[in-house]
Amino acid sequence: MDYYNMKPVDVRRLIRDGKITGPTSGMCAGYAQANLVILPKELAYDFLLFTQRNPKSCPVLEVSDVGSRSLHYIAQDVDLAKDFPKYRIYKKGELAGEYTDVEAFWQEDFVSFLIGCSFSFESALLDAGVPVRHIEENCNVPMYKTNIPCTPAGIFHGNMVVSMRPLPHDQVVKAALVTGEMPRVHGAPIHIGDPSAIGIADIHRPDFGDSVTIHEGEVPVFWPCGVTLQNVVMNVKPDIVITHSPGHMLITDVKNVELKY
Amino acid sequence: MDYYNMKPVDVRRLIRDGKITGPTSGMCAGYAQANLVILPKELAYDFLLFTQRNPKSCPVLEVSDVGSRSLHYIAQDVDLAKDFPKYRIYKKGELAGEYTDVEAFWQEDFVSFLIGCSFSFESALLDAGVPVRHIEENCNVPMYKTNIPCTPAGIFHGNMVVSMRPLPHDQVVKAALVTGEMPRVHGAPIHIGDPSAIGIADIHRPDFGDSVTIHEGEVPVFWPCGVTLQNVVMNVKPDIVITHSPGHMLITDVKNVELKY
Repeated sequence: MDYYNMKPVDVRRLIRDGKITGPTSGMCAGYAQANLVILPKELAYDFLLFTQRNPKSCPVLEVSDVGSRSLHYIAQDVDLAKDFPKYRIYKKGELAGEYTDVEAFWQEDFVSFLIGCSFSFESALLDAGVPVRHIEENCNVPMYKTNIPCTPAGIFHGNMVVSMRPLPHDQVVKAALVTGEMPRVHGAPIHIGDPSAIGIADIHRPDFGDSVTIHEGEVPVFWPCGVTLQNVVMNVKPDIVITHSPGHMLITDVKNVELKY
Repeated sequence: MDYYNMKPVDVRRLIRDGKITGPTSGMCAGYAQANLVILPKELAYDFLLFTQRNPKSCPVLEVSDVGSRSLHYIAQDVDLAKDFPKYRIYKKGELAGEYTDVEAFWQEDFVSFLIGCSFSFESALLDAGVPVRHIEENCNVPMYKTNIPCTPAGIFHGNMVVSMRPLPHDQVVKAALVTGEMPRVHGAPIHIGDPSAIGIADIHRPDFGDSVTIHEGEVPVFWPCGVTLQNVVMNVKPDIVITHSPGHMLITDVKNVELKY
């Protein structure tokens, strides 16, 4: 199947029917993909406020109505309990299982947060001729815990997690400008250069994802990362949280370029 | 007193001490001013979600912690019950009084929403050489109810209110670009030209504010307006809502140019 050129609604249907259960990278070219955090309503106010106070790491694309499994704006004909290829359920902060369908676990008090994803800005970087190393090396982007505090909100607090892409020095400014135009998918870098300045001890040992090659003379460039949210939620150890499984995203009906406006 | 060149913290102190009770327009050049909506916590989730779904008319600069009269980010040493020159208290959707200090009415469950203000982008327009008619005519900006529906959230719903500035045709694109760079203070125009296209029957009879002169050949340009929020809140007729009195804003410690990043 040519997933690259398919329409989002058609790929979502294949996912819903269990015919796609793998990562969504490279599917539906040009369309934004979204991260997922589902929480009970009693935690939703503090969580929404956390995203408002930390828009760089937590750019919200849409928040569902309470209990609803559909969306109104970024995608039509969606079933939030089935349209991600893989979900993770966490209980009291511990991974309790991975599922391709979470209908059986749905609660009437669930609120779903759809969060912008770096796939969108990587597509813009590639279009602008900026290399993206983990795509070249066909692995996951390296991610690191930092010493940059998020702005707390109610029960939620913690440090920012960043993703890193090594760039030739003459591509750094272009990368900052291209991504700076896309604030709804993390926006501009949060740091350029010395990893120790933001509390990263060893650039070759990421906390999440895979290590990538950094060539002689290349500069590590760091962006705010949506994993920040999962980190912050797990600190609180809620009774139940459902997220997407890394790389297994919702493909929305919104094009990346539309997210600029 | 030379309020134009004073620091925000000093003007806030004069306001807190009751020495300034008038409009804040033209004070503390370059610093952003903020609108206010204070609601009980039980309405705050739906309201915060409404702002998330309607960022053009409702660009949130900061949300206070529950019950707190201070802020953490856009201004230090603030007393939200005293640092606006004038407040309005609405009970069940009806204006119940205007006060220069609302300490006596404070509730432990209050949440304060500070909203970006068009003063910021008007300053940028003037810097760019774009005329602002209501400033020239020393009156309030004309504002209109439209037929543009806001995206509802929980109990909150209603149509967008817009502000209008007439411009020579050769200044329209510049005005759109200048304000489009400032999404945290309403951003780009929502409509250019024919008022009837957005449900405005008579451009010379604004629903709020004052009518301004539109010269031969000038184009009316419409921006999303923070009065949208007050309109939407009043539809719900909450037991109590406190807002600033029009034009009587909080002067923040954040410069307008900082709001771009």
